[in-house]
Amino acid sequence: MKDYAKTPISRIRRNPKRAVYDRKAVHAILDSALLCHVAYVIDGQPYCTPTIHWREGETMFWHGSSASRMLRAQGKGAPVCLTVTHLDGLVMARSAFNHSCNFRSAMVFGTARLIDDPSEKRRALLAITDRLYPGRNAELRSMTDQEIKATSVVAMEIEAASAKVRAENVGDDEIDGSHPVWAGVIPVQTVIGAPLASPILPEDQAYPAHLAPYTTGKRLDEALAETQALYEKGVL
Amino acid sequence: MKDYAKTPISRIRRNPKRAVYDRKAVHAILDSALLCHVAYVIDGQPYCTPTIHWREGETMFWHGSSASRMLRAQGKGAPVCLTVTHLDGLVMARSAFNHSCNFRSAMVFGTARLIDDPSEKRRALLAITDRLYPGRNAELRSMTDQEIKATSVVAMEIEAASAKVRAENVGDDEIDGSHPVWAGVIPVQTVIGAPLASPILPEDQAYPAHLAPYTTGKRLDEALAETQALYEKGVL
Repeated sequence: MKDYAKTPISRIRRNPKRAVYDRKAVHAILDSALLCHVAYVIDGQPYCTPTIHWREGETMFWHGSSASRMLRAQGKGAPVCLTVTHLDGLVMARSAFNHSCNFRSAMVFGTARLIDDPSEKRRALLAITDRLYPGRNAELRSMTDQEIKATSVVAMEIEAASAKVRAENVGDDEIDGSHPVWAGVIPVQTVIGAPLASPILPEDQAYPAHLAPYTTGKRLDEALAETQALYEKGVL
Repeated sequence: MKDYAKTPISRIRRNPKRAVYDRKAVHAILDSALLCHVAYVIDGQPYCTPTIHWREGETMFWHGSSASRMLRAQGKGAPVCLTVTHLDGLVMARSAFNHSCNFRSAMVFGTARLIDDPSEKRRALLAITDRLYPGRNAELRSMTDQEIKATSVVAMEIEAASAKVRAENVGDDEIDGSHPVWAGVIPVQTVIGAPLASPILPEDQAYPAHLAPYTTGKRLDEALAETQALYEKGVL
């Protein structure tokens, strides 16, 4: 796969050594998060809204209520920027200046469009569930036409993209290396907890095999990368 | 403290039962995250950039390189939206439609301005380190004028704000309660790992008391809420 082009919109200007245009690396950052933030403009006012996203090839999707002002505004062909960020650590230096954090972030740019066609919309809504929980749709009760009508799905072809990664210990200036204060990284990770069954679940309802990637104690980013790979392989 | 007003920009339209305008609750969501995403517009194009933020009263701050295009564009008095989101769980229902996630998010709106005054800027830069690591500045080598010059700080008074919280088990429709598939919540949390000392740290350099809130295994959001409280109490 070819790298993403460095366009005037997507080119990383600050700290270009941390810039990533590799398509697989950008996809990996996007796919290993449940939530993104989408920036869009209504009447000159920028908004930054968190939402669940999913990716198929070079198309990003997100969804919500058909009554959502965000989706209505975006769906008319608005320019949007969708960003995913993973925080990986706090970085402490001997100087205030060299403090930082470890992270992986990806920004993708494009033009949003509402998916109007009912069968295309149904397919997209099946995709989000099976992308997150491969095989779950087969066990759910079917979606109703009313539910599909009540949901809007937005799609966006990735027109430009870049990522930025910091994944290293502290970058103290040599001269500060002997200053007597602790320096280093405190890593952080987002971890899966023990499942809490619905209070109205029959007691004998088995925990399903399709949730096996979400093992207690595992990193969420790794579970999401795994389910995306299962989905792409069509293991449903 | 009075609630935030429901302005046309900040009023939650979808799922108003999840809406929060309580000032303390909004602050708590902001303060318990290291990173936010800021939406802003350059030449009609929205951008969504992750950055470290901090709060003093009703003022939000973020910073970066003086050469940053983002900060230059924002600092001229641009409207911005700063959003913080905590993901708390994956919510699985008996119907695709009722799948969701548990989260706490806060959106704050205002007009960005660059802090030009050198002493105001120095104070703000001391604040970010002491807000995150209360007492750390006293142990660091001092900032140089060159470092202060190389850094830009943006401030924004909160003009409007709202938050949205989902913190419950699955909301299955009654009719779906008997459908034979597992339903419930898989919680997730962001957790602090064991510190990794800088490779150039003298072996006898003690781990400092001011990092005590960042205990291994603790939730990051709780550690950040704690350090904000310490900072506000002036325990430096």
